[in-house]
Amino acid sequence: MSFNTFGHMFRVTTWGESHGAALGCVVDGCPPGIFFTQGDIQAELDRRKPGQSKYTTRRREADAVRILSGVMPEGKGYITTGTPVAMMIENTDQRSKDYGDIARQYRPGHADYAYDVKYGVRDYRGGGRSSAPRVAAGVLARKIVPGLQVRGAVVAIGEHEIDRSRWDWDEVGRNPFFCPDSAMVDIFARSLDEIRKAGSSIGAVVEIVAENVPAGLGAPVYGKLDQDIASLLMSVNAVKGVEIGDGFAAARLRGEENADEMRVDDKGEPVFLSNHAGGILGGIATGQPVIARFAVKPTSSILVPRRSIDADHHEVDVVTRGRHDPCVGIRAVPVGEAMVACAVADHFLRHRGQTGRV
Amino acid sequence: MSFNTFGHMFRVTTWGESHGAALGCVVDGCPPGIFFTQGDIQAELDRRKPGQSKYTTRRREADAVRILSGVMPEGKGYITTGTPVAMMIENTDQRSKDYGDIARQYRPGHADYAYDVKYGVRDYRGGGRSSAPRVAAGVLARKIVPGLQVRGAVVAIGEHEIDRSRWDWDEVGRNPFFCPDSAMVDIFARSLDEIRKAGSSIGAVVEIVAENVPAGLGAPVYGKLDQDIASLLMSVNAVKGVEIGDGFAAARLRGEENADEMRVDDKGEPVFLSNHAGGILGGIATGQPVIARFAVKPTSSILVPRRSIDADHHEVDVVTRGRHDPCVGIRAVPVGEAMVACAVADHFLRHRGQTGRV
Amino acid sequence: MSFNTFGHMFRVTTWGESHGAALGCVVDGCPPGIFFTQGDIQAELDRRKPGQSKYTTRRREADAVRILSGVMPEGKGYITTGTPVAMMIENTDQRSKDYGDIARQYRPGHADYAYDVKYGVRDYRGGGRSSAPRVAAGVLARKIVPGLQVRGAVVAIGEHEIDRSRWDWDEVGRNPFFCPDSAMVDIFARSLDEIRKAGSSIGAVVEIVAENVPAGLGAPVYGKLDQDIASLLMSVNAVKGVEIGDGFAAARLRGEENADEMRVDDKGEPVFLSNHAGGILGGIATGQPVIARFAVKPTSSILVPRRSIDADHHEVDVVTRGRHDPCVGIRAVPVGEAMVACAVADHFLRHRGQTGRV
Amino acid sequence: MSFNTFGHMFRVTTWGESHGAALGCVVDGCPPGIFFTQGDIQAELDRRKPGQSKYTTRRREADAVRILSGVMPEGKGYITTGTPVAMMIENTDQRSKDYGDIARQYRPGHADYAYDVKYGVRDYRGGGRSSAPRVAAGVLARKIVPGLQVRGAVVAIGEHEIDRSRWDWDEVGRNPFFCPDSAMVDIFARSLDEIRKAGSSIGAVVEIVAENVPAGLGAPVYGKLDQDIASLLMSVNAVKGVEIGDGFAAARLRGEENADEMRVDDKGEPVFLSNHAGGILGGIATGQPVIARFAVKPTSSILVPRRSIDADHHEVDVVTRGRHDPCVGIRAVPVGEAMVACAVADHFLRHRGQTGRV
Repeated sequence: MSFNTFGHMFRVTTWGESHGAALGCVVDGCPPGIFFTQGDIQAELDRRKPGQSKYTTRRREADAVRILSGVMPEGKGYITTGTPVAMMIENTDQRSKDYGDIARQYRPGHADYAYDVKYGVRDYRGGGRSSAPRVAAGVLARKIVPGLQVRGAVVAIGEHEIDRSRWDWDEVGRNPFFCPDSAMVDIFARSLDEIRKAGSSIGAVVEIVAENVPAGLGAPVYGKLDQDIASLLMSVNAVKGVEIGDGFAAARLRGEENADEMRVDDKGEPVFLSNHAGGILGGIATGQPVIARFAVKPTSSILVPRRSIDADHHEVDVVTRGRHDPCVGIRAVPVGEAMVACAVADHFLRHRGQTGRV
Repeated sequence: MSFNTFGHMFRVTTWGESHGAALGCVVDGCPPGIFFTQGDIQAELDRRKPGQSKYTTRRREADAVRILSGVMPEGKGYITTGTPVAMMIENTDQRSKDYGDIARQYRPGHADYAYDVKYGVRDYRGGGRSSAPRVAAGVLARKIVPGLQVRGAVVAIGEHEIDRSRWDWDEVGRNPFFCPDSAMVDIFARSLDEIRKAGSSIGAVVEIVAENVPAGLGAPVYGKLDQDIASLLMSVNAVKGVEIGDGFAAARLRGEENADEMRVDDKGEPVFLSNHAGGILGGIATGQPVIARFAVKPTSSILVPRRSIDADHHEVDVVTRGRHDPCVGIRAVPVGEAMVACAVADHFLRHRGQTGRV
Repeated sequence: MSFNTFGHMFRVTTWGESHGAALGCVVDGCPPGIFFTQGDIQAELDRRKPGQSKYTTRRREADAVRILSGVMPEGKGYITTGTPVAMMIENTDQRSKDYGDIARQYRPGHADYAYDVKYGVRDYRGGGRSSAPRVAAGVLARKIVPGLQVRGAVVAIGEHEIDRSRWDWDEVGRNPFFCPDSAMVDIFARSLDEIRKAGSSIGAVVEIVAENVPAGLGAPVYGKLDQDIASLLMSVNAVKGVEIGDGFAAARLRGEENADEMRVDDKGEPVFLSNHAGGILGGIATGQPVIARFAVKPTSSILVPRRSIDADHHEVDVVTRGRHDPCVGIRAVPVGEAMVACAVADHFLRHRGQTGRV
Repeated sequence: MSFNTFGHMFRVTTWGESHGAALGCVVDGCPPGIFFTQGDIQAELDRRKPGQSKYTTRRREADAVRILSGVMPEGKGYITTGTPVAMMIENTDQRSKDYGDIARQYRPGHADYAYDVKYGVRDYRGGGRSSAPRVAAGVLARKIVPGLQVRGAVVAIGEHEIDRSRWDWDEVGRNPFFCPDSAMVDIFARSLDEIRKAGSSIGAVVEIVAENVPAGLGAPVYGKLDQDIASLLMSVNAVKGVEIGDGFAAARLRGEENADEMRVDDKGEPVFLSNHAGGILGGIATGQPVIARFAVKPTSSILVPRRSIDADHHEVDVVTRGRHDPCVGIRAVPVGEAMVACAVADHFLRHRGQTGRV
């Protein structure tokens, strides 16, 4: 909806700067009686946490979550009461340091210049907004829709694309790249080693697959399920493109190639014979897996000097020192999953509200 | 925001079915004192109107707009008063006909099945939602932001892509494809002739360029300008992918290639040396042209028989007769322009509200 | 929510000026499968229509409603399809006239001055917003909640208050004042005759009672059912105060007087022994009748000359000629009913969405 | 807007239970560059804090606020950066205790029964939502509108009403009742002593006056300034009625009595000769003081036994032991001020956005 809230019935507000005192979220509209544990939240936060391997930034984040409201103790966890669930992660690594020139320089490819133009004030200490709170919200979202499974994978890093015929969800959890193609893991590793040593960075493409999304979720026109998924994925930092199903490839197809044909299975239930649509037609889920992909640009925090200006409009050369991800797309996988889960949960509640069905 | 409204300060609600009595929009939040004429609205409606050439559906739409509220007469047109502007297009071609099997068959690639699952009732007479009211709203949006220019073009039809080095905005108005590359016009024409004769259809890619978008529009996190553009473009019927700036190509770049460097010009003003970002960094406009692309799938209304089922779950073969576009992407150009204009106008008002600046 | 839309799941956007070409509403989020007839809508519109008796304005409004979208024909009426229902009333009495001084004078008690300060432009032809479209939306709202009954009555005109011990709902339909106390009808009549002849006007208090509001509708804090009822009633023109249950009288009670005690009835079901709360506790419906009252100020369109200024800040005396209601509170009864019905319907859908219960 | 957020441009989300780990708010849309100190927030929190006198609950709340995001250090305080400002109050008095029967009994006049019906789960430990976070948000709201002054007072406790001719704002800060009439202070004191000793409670009426609200804030129809004030005041716990200006008394006036006449002052500026309207006409501020009143019911937490039932529908007698306010209306004064300030700030930003004026 607005600046720092998304969702209509399952509504998430996030706050906090990456280098500030704390960051968190308020999940509003969560149904009562949902059971979860702190461990459920922590496990997902750990998946996107930096410092897990040499391929992600070694900056340390505590990411230890506190559950502050909207719950009652239940067994080893909590159940939601229907009031807003506030969660917070305090920042334990918030040392003061000398920002020096950075405070006034505009790093190329960063939003420094845009912030200054917009607000006239900019938090040069690291005003970026972490995506950790989104991931916490996503855990609750997943539990709202019975049977919902949302999984993500990196399908390309730079020029290197996986072979979809070798797709193996089990492999995703076995390598530091969320890569579903075991034959590609070494290639990703060697490529990122080179990039890291060069002080550079590289882009990536992430694919999210949501299974057991009930047919009927979504709405035509401005409440399309794919629209809301696109909106949330595009809101993730560094994302520059979003596709549903065949996406841009659909622009090269003929009508008879693109339309997913239907038959009935041996129980008389409708089945689709293909899934070019990515599980969504006319903005409404068909019951097939919902498939979304998004492109993540390379981070602009690199050791290669780049030309820029400072706040006084002097020309400068900028090198962004510090601990950064050579490929931020990797850690975007759990974030993308959370965004899709939140969109599905929101539409689940909206659909139930409007139609009385699930 | 919700099912049939978009925007936060510049809020557009649309209604009406493509074969119903009428369709229209309510534009809420439009600043007072904006001058426009009925001709301004009509001219844009005519750009997306079917039946303009053999390459778009020959179904006739009257598309004659009535301005019903929110305005006072002023010279040869109107000025807005600040109250909601309602506009309506009555449907003059609303003949009753025999829908026969269509009423119960699910056309492959259409949302027929999804509608039935969702609502339990479906308007088989043609319940699709026309995009004409969006185009009308876009006319007001363009007038709100001083100097704003939003233009669109078809950059690919099927396998045929334009050569960007030949891009000529004047050419766009001279051919029936909104094609900016004069050398590609004949190729598009021959390709569409073949497809039309085969009773088939084809996808397309559309690019929208918005110039004079004030730096500072947008917001980080969930109020990103690119997020809202992506959301609105994805809400257009048949759109399956959206990109900002380099989009998916950015996933293949290194950080030093992707980051747009800055210098000052001879007046001391900041200039960017490239525009990989598509005019938006951190969700905020930088003052460069805002560039968005979207992929339109081929329409599923084709004469090629396809396998499907009906509402009783009997297997059937479906041929969608009638007058349809061989390439719906062409008529999506004015719609895409309108969506980008609406997003920019909304953020213009939001930015002015929050910061007091323009 | 915003300027010209209210509701969260049952969302109503209204448009149109009282002397403009037309006015109407778009009802968004209406569940599919709701049956209604044009007569249902028209009957409610007729209840608030001016010119019904000498006690309401004799200005004629056609108030003939057209249903433009969101429905399919069904028997002698329509069923909703789940897409937005647009309804429109064309203004047949829209004669041009000479507005003369009125165009620049600020009528005391009217919003003329406020409009000019806000917008810098003002529709002196009669830019007021009719409440007819609200009434049309209320008809759909009533049909959404099974068994819901919403009725209203005038409980005071000026100094004259009804005797609640004589309350008779049948009487309400038998007199031109929506008065539930037969002994008060003549007193209201004589009082209004005097006021009308004096070219003056008088205020009124209206009470709305909603029965069969399911227990559980509403939410604590900012989604309180009573909050939303208060918000919508206060949005009706000329309303200056709203009460729930005992309202301001509760400020004079002690805790033991105000708290509604509970017992179980002979079927073991919970019963309340009183209803000071007006059917809402903590923002949530208890299952008792929901009771709201609102105060309507006297219209400022009177023949008694009043001191004012014009747009050039010259001092003037203003007499507002024309056909006006001596007591606008009377025609506010169907509008108040519609507002309560809309709030209940919205919370019905929200509650069903969040909790899966009704 | 939705369940736990209010406002459109100045958007406040609050969370936290009164006996939970913490409570807080997220203020979204706050303009950048607003200076404030922790002391500013704390001072307002202290005004509504319990335990300040024997006339308010002696339950202790720490109410020590932490500022967690959206700010940069500036001098002895902070300036806002334009990103969401999160504030939190940790609960230091969160001792575990034996809730015994209370856990299953429905206290008469409380929302216990309604919560159980709605959610099927209820936080019997004290799930009420504190209004402290609203007060914190109100501090920022006041600073957004130049010159805005929002003050409140208790104008009645039970049967005892102040004499408005003795109104003295300075007196308000000198007594524990926020009473503006020095002659009434002793009467309030004696009355509350008696009520407290009897284990009972009493209602109150609070008046809020906002000065220097710029003319033009607000909007006709559903964005009325008075509508939003009514909505927010009615969302405060225990509030049962809201009035603007003359409120219910306006229902007893004639048109010529109620309409505020206008003249020009000796500088040629428009002046109103009275303020029956409470500073708002047609939903838009006129520049006069905005005046709102609200009725607060007596708390139902009393030592007088009342009849009720428990969750198993057994009939029980309930005495609510503990530390409670004999008159919760007193501590509602700073909360009411905050709500009016938030509504004004929201409309200030909306008005600036839509019209470009202030």
